[in-house]
Amino acid sequence: MNSHLLQNLKSLFNPRTVAVIGASENPDKLGSHVMKSLKLGNFGGTILPINPGSESIMGLKAAPSILDYPSPVELAIIVLPAKFVPGIFEECIKKNVKGIVLITAGFKEIDDPAGAQLQKSLARLANSANIPVIGPNTFGMINLHHHLNASFTPEFSWLQKGGISLISQSGGMSHLVAFMAMRQVAGMSKIIGLGNRLNVDFAEMVAYLMDDPETHVIALYIEGLDDPRRLIEVAGERRGMKPIVAYKTGRAMTGDRASLSHTGSMAGNHDIYKGAMKQAGIAYADSAESLLDLARALAMCPLPGGNRVAILSGQAGPGMSACDVCESEGMKIATFGPTTQGIINDLLPPLALRTNPVDMGPAWYNSSAIAGIVKAVMEDEFVDGILLLMMFASANREAVSGISDFLIQCQQKKPVVACLEAPPGIWDDQVLELEKRGALINVRTPERAARAMAGLWKYKTTIEEV
Amino acid sequence: MNSHLLQNLKSLFNPRTVAVIGASENPDKLGSHVMKSLKLGNFGGTILPINPGSESIMGLKAAPSILDYPSPVELAIIVLPAKFVPGIFEECIKKNVKGIVLITAGFKEIDDPAGAQLQKSLARLANSANIPVIGPNTFGMINLHHHLNASFTPEFSWLQKGGISLISQSGGMSHLVAFMAMRQVAGMSKIIGLGNRLNVDFAEMVAYLMDDPETHVIALYIEGLDDPRRLIEVAGERRGMKPIVAYKTGRAMTGDRASLSHTGSMAGNHDIYKGAMKQAGIAYADSAESLLDLARALAMCPLPGGNRVAILSGQAGPGMSACDVCESEGMKIATFGPTTQGIINDLLPPLALRTNPVDMGPAWYNSSAIAGIVKAVMEDEFVDGILLLMMFASANREAVSGISDFLIQCQQKKPVVACLEAPPGIWDDQVLELEKRGALINVRTPERAARAMAGLWKYKTTIEEV
Repeated sequence: MNSHLLQNLKSLFNPRTVAVIGASENPDKLGSHVMKSLKLGNFGGTILPINPGSESIMGLKAAPSILDYPSPVELAIIVLPAKFVPGIFEECIKKNVKGIVLITAGFKEIDDPAGAQLQKSLARLANSANIPVIGPNTFGMINLHHHLNASFTPEFSWLQKGGISLISQSGGMSHLVAFMAMRQVAGMSKIIGLGNRLNVDFAEMVAYLMDDPETHVIALYIEGLDDPRRLIEVAGERRGMKPIVAYKTGRAMTGDRASLSHTGSMAGNHDIYKGAMKQAGIAYADSAESLLDLARALAMCPLPGGNRVAILSGQAGPGMSACDVCESEGMKIATFGPTTQGIINDLLPPLALRTNPVDMGPAWYNSSAIAGIVKAVMEDEFVDGILLLMMFASANREAVSGISDFLIQCQQKKPVVACLEAPPGIWDDQVLELEKRGALINVRTPERAARAMAGLWKYKTTIEEV
Repeated sequence: MNSHLLQNLKSLFNPRTVAVIGASENPDKLGSHVMKSLKLGNFGGTILPINPGSESIMGLKAAPSILDYPSPVELAIIVLPAKFVPGIFEECIKKNVKGIVLITAGFKEIDDPAGAQLQKSLARLANSANIPVIGPNTFGMINLHHHLNASFTPEFSWLQKGGISLISQSGGMSHLVAFMAMRQVAGMSKIIGLGNRLNVDFAEMVAYLMDDPETHVIALYIEGLDDPRRLIEVAGERRGMKPIVAYKTGRAMTGDRASLSHTGSMAGNHDIYKGAMKQAGIAYADSAESLLDLARALAMCPLPGGNRVAILSGQAGPGMSACDVCESEGMKIATFGPTTQGIINDLLPPLALRTNPVDMGPAWYNSSAIAGIVKAVMEDEFVDGILLLMMFASANREAVSGISDFLIQCQQKKPVVACLEAPPGIWDDQVLELEKRGALINVRTPERAARAMAGLWKYKTTIEEV
């Protein structure tokens, strides 16, 4: 791997000055959306529109070429048609640009072999100057910690800043994950659309993000790799340093075809991928929902020491659905130690189910009882992780606030994955506060909570295997 | 099955006057929440609080006993402690009440055999007068079409009116499904918490809802049944009349224990249930999310004639993830007929993936091209159902509105399950309008869309098998 190129990735994600080559005010041009993105993202540095036909664009002074700008430019975002790109690359090299986001399509992915040839010659140019290139054929990327929305989707700027970085082979999937993150207020660090991977592939991005202090978890969306071993090697060498979770599609033959066509590589055999990723210490998700749930859990929860789960539920039904998923995913329903069981027996009436899974329903009016149960279970040496499941009912409105202080104080000695669900607007702020204070992670259903807990444990076993 | 009891269910769900026996203004009492529910639900009939200690409750004239009220009472909601319930039942019989919602707990589910005995004697009383009883140990029920919120959760009244009725063995699961329905604006008809099933079990409710014109789909959440054959018989006799979809938990032994404790019956063997339900023409869901997704699809989409799916995607990635789920769920990725393929080849440039799954990305600016593709596929005899997947990007903001008229006009000659996702607030209203006009159903991820489509097809095969 080219270490100069890796170093330049730092400037690419944290530039002082960003040039938009092909900037426009015409809403039919991607160049206008990119300009809007940088502005909506509140980029703190200089935005430099490049367009030979305009003096200024969206109120910002434009230059006819990047070479006409007197000060340094670290990042160039290119949205011009493919045929202009080689010339622009040469200008970028001359200008000593540190990184390029190449949004333009029409290279390796087109039927015409000229596309692939053009991409090869661009790669040679970029590599000769150690310039990392995100793309071509990408929506771009966003670095929320640097207020840098270098994409054609201004609305990415609505995301909350956080610790999850997504490296994605699909723009559509990046957008989907981002929208889910918005709805669940999950904190993101970077979202990177690899596109056709001129010289920055999963391997380079994983290597870079492993050393990025603003990234706590790396999420991957993979369709197919030209050389899977490079990713496996990079991840394997860094096994356990920082969690990686991957979602891979392209199992179906038809899917292979789709992958071939739009990212320029075969999707490959699913099981081989899965085995190789496990060897490299990469956790595995099997849907977009699971990818985000598990990335959030890995970002916000400690890893469980074993697979023994306590299910503390405000109502029996959600506890049962979580039980089913736990057992099918290889988790064990913990048998509480005698001290814990004694405390629970004291706190709950006999009509409640007091063994694991615990039905805390009868204690709804008594948040100190619930806190007492959670505390006992948190300290029980026979329990490795806690699923906390409570459905709102008018009578238990205060249940979350009643145990918040305690939960925050606990700071997850063990992972706490919760499903605290209520009609929109009732518990959202309280639950968000619990997440922000590191007390738990909340997901939308008990089944997803159980799956995320199992994912934490599987990741743990994956990084421990040699 | 007792036909008088079934007839009385109609009055239970559509009463003129509802008595709340144990009504209260004290927010620590469930009787206050039930009063709030009826008021927040805008019940159009008379609400009669019963409490010997109060002249009026929440501004409504109260009576000391139901027998003191001069006019008829169709529905009695009971929230008094268990020991008072037999006496109240006798009063209800005297008053010629048509139905009872018994929220009170402390019967069959408690350790003390006196609980089960009390429940038996109550059942004898209720059966002698053909009074159907929802409960005991339930949150109650809601009939949105009659503005009747007979539960202890006033916020159920926030639900949208629609065609899905949920019969649930768990209050917690009922609340979870209701909150999901709120977030996705899914229309509900009735939500019924069966509780410990004094004399109204799944079989009675399914029989009743089959003839209920306001119910288009019946969703079941099952943990365990005393006599599974009764449900299977009732459903089997009505196979295909109205879709039924079930989610059953309690696979795990621990889950069995939970089930035993809180609903008074064993959960039973999962595979036997699954087979029996299939025989009876009941569709099967394996999570709370799938239960609601599939119920919505069954309520709003025609059934596919076969398993050949067209995947029309705005970006390749979501199409691939849908492909994977389709193939693992027994669906086929359709091969388009030559006319369809010709039309798509004309409408999309060569750089797009034009065979199924179709990447419509290059047509984002051109909604007539997208409409043309959907139209060709809708008319293609080699296609049985359509997955329409589009992720918002700033540049395709008008994509949904651009094809709305066409989609509404089409009226789903074939099922259209969509995943049209955007940041909150951007496409929500347009997508909701498409759902209301019968053009499609929208779910949150491509994988869930594919699973719902497969569920429609599996249901079709289930009701066709003899």
